[in-house]
Amino acid sequence: MGLNLGQITDALGGDLQGDRQTLITRLAPLATASSSELGFLSHPKYQSQLNDTQAACVVVSPVLAPVAIARGACIVTPDPYLYFARLTQLWRAHHPMPVGPRIHPTAVIDPSASIDPSATIGPLCVVESGAHIGAHTRLHARVHVGHSCVVGDRCILHPGVVIGADGFGFAPHEGAWVKIEQLGAVRLGDDVELGANTCVDRGALEDTTIGNGVKIDNLVQIGHNVHIGDHSALAGCAGVAGSAHIGAHCTLGGGAIVLGHLELADHVHISAASVVTRSIHQAGQYSGFFPIDDNAAWEKNAASLRQLHRLRERIKALEQRPQPSQ
Amino acid sequence: MGLNLGQITDALGGDLQGDRQTLITRLAPLATASSSELGFLSHPKYQSQLNDTQAACVVVSPVLAPVAIARGACIVTPDPYLYFARLTQLWRAHHPMPVGPRIHPTAVIDPSASIDPSATIGPLCVVESGAHIGAHTRLHARVHVGHSCVVGDRCILHPGVVIGADGFGFAPHEGAWVKIEQLGAVRLGDDVELGANTCVDRGALEDTTIGNGVKIDNLVQIGHNVHIGDHSALAGCAGVAGSAHIGAHCTLGGGAIVLGHLELADHVHISAASVVTRSIHQAGQYSGFFPIDDNAAWEKNAASLRQLHRLRERIKALEQRPQPSQ
Amino acid sequence: MGLNLGQITDALGGDLQGDRQTLITRLAPLATASSSELGFLSHPKYQSQLNDTQAACVVVSPVLAPVAIARGACIVTPDPYLYFARLTQLWRAHHPMPVGPRIHPTAVIDPSASIDPSATIGPLCVVESGAHIGAHTRLHARVHVGHSCVVGDRCILHPGVVIGADGFGFAPHEGAWVKIEQLGAVRLGDDVELGANTCVDRGALEDTTIGNGVKIDNLVQIGHNVHIGDHSALAGCAGVAGSAHIGAHCTLGGGAIVLGHLELADHVHISAASVVTRSIHQAGQYSGFFPIDDNAAWEKNAASLRQLHRLRERIKALEQRPQPSQ
Repeated sequence: MGLNLGQITDALGGDLQGDRQTLITRLAPLATASSSELGFLSHPKYQSQLNDTQAACVVVSPVLAPVAIARGACIVTPDPYLYFARLTQLWRAHHPMPVGPRIHPTAVIDPSASIDPSATIGPLCVVESGAHIGAHTRLHARVHVGHSCVVGDRCILHPGVVIGADGFGFAPHEGAWVKIEQLGAVRLGDDVELGANTCVDRGALEDTTIGNGVKIDNLVQIGHNVHIGDHSALAGCAGVAGSAHIGAHCTLGGGAIVLGHLELADHVHISAASVVTRSIHQAGQYSGFFPIDDNAAWEKNAASLRQLHRLRERIKALEQRPQPSQ
Repeated sequence: MGLNLGQITDALGGDLQGDRQTLITRLAPLATASSSELGFLSHPKYQSQLNDTQAACVVVSPVLAPVAIARGACIVTPDPYLYFARLTQLWRAHHPMPVGPRIHPTAVIDPSASIDPSATIGPLCVVESGAHIGAHTRLHARVHVGHSCVVGDRCILHPGVVIGADGFGFAPHEGAWVKIEQLGAVRLGDDVELGANTCVDRGALEDTTIGNGVKIDNLVQIGHNVHIGDHSALAGCAGVAGSAHIGAHCTLGGGAIVLGHLELADHVHISAASVVTRSIHQAGQYSGFFPIDDNAAWEKNAASLRQLHRLRERIKALEQRPQPSQ
Repeated sequence: MGLNLGQITDALGGDLQGDRQTLITRLAPLATASSSELGFLSHPKYQSQLNDTQAACVVVSPVLAPVAIARGACIVTPDPYLYFARLTQLWRAHHPMPVGPRIHPTAVIDPSASIDPSATIGPLCVVESGAHIGAHTRLHARVHVGHSCVVGDRCILHPGVVIGADGFGFAPHEGAWVKIEQLGAVRLGDDVELGANTCVDRGALEDTTIGNGVKIDNLVQIGHNVHIGDHSALAGCAGVAGSAHIGAHCTLGGGAIVLGHLELADHVHISAASVVTRSIHQAGQYSGFFPIDDNAAWEKNAASLRQLHRLRERIKALEQRPQPSQ
């Protein structure tokens, strides 16, 4: 179990300052790494960790190389965080999780579904009629892919994901709700990853679509008719309401909500717990949440906030007061 | 595959202006409808879409009939959105999704559960002892209905729904939590629809109850002892804490939260992402979320907000300043 | 079915004022209790319920004993709420839910997983390779415990729980996301309870850890590398982002969010729907959500809020105005 430094740099590049034969037994955070483990330093502000770590080797950027070399073995690379990501992949490839059968016998797969021969379907999954699962895609246990939904290549769907439940559509009629049958489906692009218990609803008429390379965390809700552009990322507990269109390279922070029928341009970043209530046409960072405070201070400020409009009028009245003659 | 206009108006009514034999191959949004597809226009503000659409036929209200007739075939009806809802149902009835066995062989159903002979139980569902599933109700795949819980007639439960997990009840004792066994159950009325991965907890002593015609979206949490009145609707990611009572014909926007033990009157509407912290006895629309802004503006305003109480005092001091004699 | 008052006080103590032979057929809220049922009164402010209840017996604190005795049978105990919790456990022990087989035949358990002989595994659960399930722990139906994850003793995992899905970690590279393989696992302490459809992600390098006695409600998201201290409690829809460290005896209200890499000291309490954006080193209650209001008032205040920074400057300008000479 393990890789030596030569194996690592042969596979991933980087400028190795140290002994190729040094065996690495684990990847670890710098703060807790033992003398047979490898850590990384992605940001100069954590430089102090370099002095304290016991790690056998540290992955660093060129600017930190002199300090790192003085300490011991290191791998110098322009983007240590990216290097670390690839190193986790190399590590996993050398220490694979046990894999069950390609299609687990407890999965319930409609005969009309098309499953690429290279795809993996975990235990207790359901793949309904007419669905398609792309090449090298992995459905972990207990994933649901509904009727006619399409999952692209190299996707990863974590346990409990539900693709293709009905969108939430009803017409009001005499005080009750008349169901709008959801006649569309869901299409996921390639290289999409969906976190545990995340839901993507089928479209009302056309398909809900998730672009290539989109990454979505756990417990996220994607409503019907939504479109998410390539390489966007949504953190846990986020929600996107029906018919919203999110551009490419966007991010939603945890718990952020996008209301229905809105459009977000490319490269729009929404802070955690913020509610998008209007379309955003300009790239940038947007925020909207109440700053946390100790409860007593919050209560005072919240109470004042409920009269803010009147405060504004009082300021205006003050401004209109006659001033003393100079 | 398809329906002609005569079949549609024979089944649903409406004033057909056009050829009964025209074949409709799909229902589609006006903006993308092709010349063999049918669209609808629910609101006069979208009237411009009428001019641009290629649709074979458009469902419109009487006020838009002259413009629609000038364009081509149309169906005139007082409530196009309701008509559209019913048309999706007609469409589905003529183009049904493939249905598996009435009770899927992989479902785990306790012998003491009572399942109406007209109900459908999807793959990998669990129905525990003493539970009841009503007539024409459909449990999609992987739904959980716990011990002694009751699901009414014509309900639809989407994949991953959990009915009857324990409510979250603990008594504090010497720094730890002592579990309060949850001895109640859950009762869903008729015509209830619950979205994917939504949870309704069993009551502590009495039952958690969801009224007739209630529609709940995905990933919604309903705590123990909650009562939701008939025909209310809750959007995705909403949460209702324990012992809250929500009236009839209420709506909660996406991500809205109702705290425990509160009461909402009938016809109360809570905006998305708002937190209900007090009972609301008057029908109406209620809101409470921080307006989103570009991050720099938000930061300035949020910082000022944290001193709002002091600003209020400064205004008061200004008001008490002596004014120049007139 | 039922217990008499003597059985109850023999098992749980308390000072019984009344007939040991009185049969209790159900535990019930005071307001609806019938004359064969038992209720409790935890707080003197609900004293008026004592006068109205039909209950056969009421559990009260010493301060309410005189009033309760004047009404009828009662059990006097220092902490009625704790007594009630234990009484629900006694009740459940005497009226157990039907239990299926210890390991349900539909559960999918890797041969390398270690399951304590006293643990119960419900239908359609998945326990992956190398996982451990502790003594007297119960996995309800459809629970997922991933590769190498450890669940302590006496834990309760409700339906749909997902332990050990991948944490949400990606390195940005040329506009796309490079996956960071998640090489850690999840460790739950003893006496942990996790609500329906709650997710706890595996760590990137080290384990995500949940302390002893922690109680987590439904639909809660726990990110990778998170540590939660003993006896903390998280209400429904809460979210804890990656690498956050939450102390012991903390509480998060429903929908509260803790951002990544933050630290919360012991005994920190976060109000519902509040967003923790900075570490909190001092015990106490913290809040941050926009107070709800009728929509018209909210709109006015929200609009003013978006210019709060300018209001502050206007106040400053007013303060700098020359004042009339006295």
